[in-house]
Amino acid sequence: MNQQMEIICVGNELLIGKTLNTNAHWLAKRATTFGIIVKRITTVGDDVDEIAVAVRGTLGRKTKFVITTGGLGPTFDDKTLEGIAKALNCELGVNEKALKMIKEKYNMYFKEGKMEKVELTPSRVKMAKLPEIAEPLPNRVGTAPGVIMNMEETTLVALPGVPTEMEAIFEESVAPLLKKNAGQLTFFETSIYADGIMESALAPLIDKTMHDNPHVYIKSHPKGEEREPHMEVHFSATAKDSKTAKNHIGKAIIQLSDLMQKDGGKIKIQKKKGSHY
Amino acid sequence: MNQQMEIICVGNELLIGKTLNTNAHWLAKRATTFGIIVKRITTVGDDVDEIAVAVRGTLGRKTKFVITTGGLGPTFDDKTLEGIAKALNCELGVNEKALKMIKEKYNMYFKEGKMEKVELTPSRVKMAKLPEIAEPLPNRVGTAPGVIMNMEETTLVALPGVPTEMEAIFEESVAPLLKKNAGQLTFFETSIYADGIMESALAPLIDKTMHDNPHVYIKSHPKGEEREPHMEVHFSATAKDSKTAKNHIGKAIIQLSDLMQKDGGKIKIQKKKGSHY
Repeated sequence: MNQQMEIICVGNELLIGKTLNTNAHWLAKRATTFGIIVKRITTVGDDVDEIAVAVRGTLGRKTKFVITTGGLGPTFDDKTLEGIAKALNCELGVNEKALKMIKEKYNMYFKEGKMEKVELTPSRVKMAKLPEIAEPLPNRVGTAPGVIMNMEETTLVALPGVPTEMEAIFEESVAPLLKKNAGQLTFFETSIYADGIMESALAPLIDKTMHDNPHVYIKSHPKGEEREPHMEVHFSATAKDSKTAKNHIGKAIIQLSDLMQKDGGKIKIQKKKGSHY
Repeated sequence: MNQQMEIICVGNELLIGKTLNTNAHWLAKRATTFGIIVKRITTVGDDVDEIAVAVRGTLGRKTKFVITTGGLGPTFDDKTLEGIAKALNCELGVNEKALKMIKEKYNMYFKEGKMEKVELTPSRVKMAKLPEIAEPLPNRVGTAPGVIMNMEETTLVALPGVPTEMEAIFEESVAPLLKKNAGQLTFFETSIYADGIMESALAPLIDKTMHDNPHVYIKSHPKGEEREPHMEVHFSATAKDSKTAKNHIGKAIIQLSDLMQKDGGKIKIQKKKGSHY
């Protein structure tokens, strides 16, 4: 089963370093918990051609799931759907279901006394202009609907850039889809921490442990400096069930801890509480 | 002058949502301050082919500056230089200048009593294996040198993933280069905040203001919900000097504030202290 995903984040604010890309981090973490493998994250600006090139890239790689964030709102520089339409070589048109969702939102704001009159201005109708093959996804938090396109090899989902809206649509409409497609795979990860061993001394020990434990991925993350090393050693495994993943990781931790204590001198090993998503 | 940059971040930890990509944010912000235009940020895993594909993409787009972060260390999964060599169709070989830098580091650690003996193990020599055309960049904080490759159309710089090391090498060896190439361009940005105007009502006002102020980019960032709007409106401009950029932005702020107060009812406008990088 193809469980690969790519994420495309759209927004000039990400490219000028105004906004830290927490959306990509959140999506990558959530997708990984379902056993989905995130292969690439691409950030581009509010530019139709840049978006189209990024989307075409994911389609060319036959990525099963593509999620975009940002660029669905009412302003001129919300260009994600235009970029997707260009990539798919199709037209944008008013989607009646999406328009109904948007109307209902503004009627609600009107009833709440937030607006003086309900007026479907061009900026508001813009949020209902979707690629022909698209379906809208309900947005409980904001106004612009999410968008889903089921194509032969790829399912493309466009989510808003506002984190609360992005997360709400993901949980309601995307998470169930990913869970179903990922099958029964489980991702498990944990870390141990060691003082007093340089990363360069640890490297051959990790090599040996990974060679003997082919289902486990081990990566060292130096927290101090090479000369005053504080090392996080991160273990992760994707397996058919949580027990299998934990067993694989447990064996690898025992072997690497032994090797580290033998070779590295005085090492304190502190096991972090395993985070089973 | 071509002032475009792309950033490639390498690391599985970024794709499983373990680590938030603060390196890309920091680099994008710093480069933007010099008038450099960051066009794309790509994150890939610790995989030679994935890295090579990402690097080839930047070369195909004739990007002037490419900065990679991560994957320069001593462990088996530090694969950035291997990926770059594959993209450039060249070999990796021990670079004598880089090896000297690394030797000096370990000699220093030995003198400080951090190591029992200095031994240039394969894991340590690995950090000196560079593409043929590369030059090492000194790393004052850690051990693995940065790497620079000057090609016909592109300057490619590889920096470590540990933020303190990445930042130190950038400031010492990359910032002067970017400043020189960006010429005299200055980036200026500021924000105003407004309550009580929906993003969909703001959209046509921004359109008009940008049309009348073609040197200014204006983007709305909704902080509340459409029904209870708290809006950040971000103004940015790149100009030949700071005074020109500020003038452009000042005019746009006055026009948009007027339009917002006329159309949007009760609006509080609070000007943030301008951040001139």
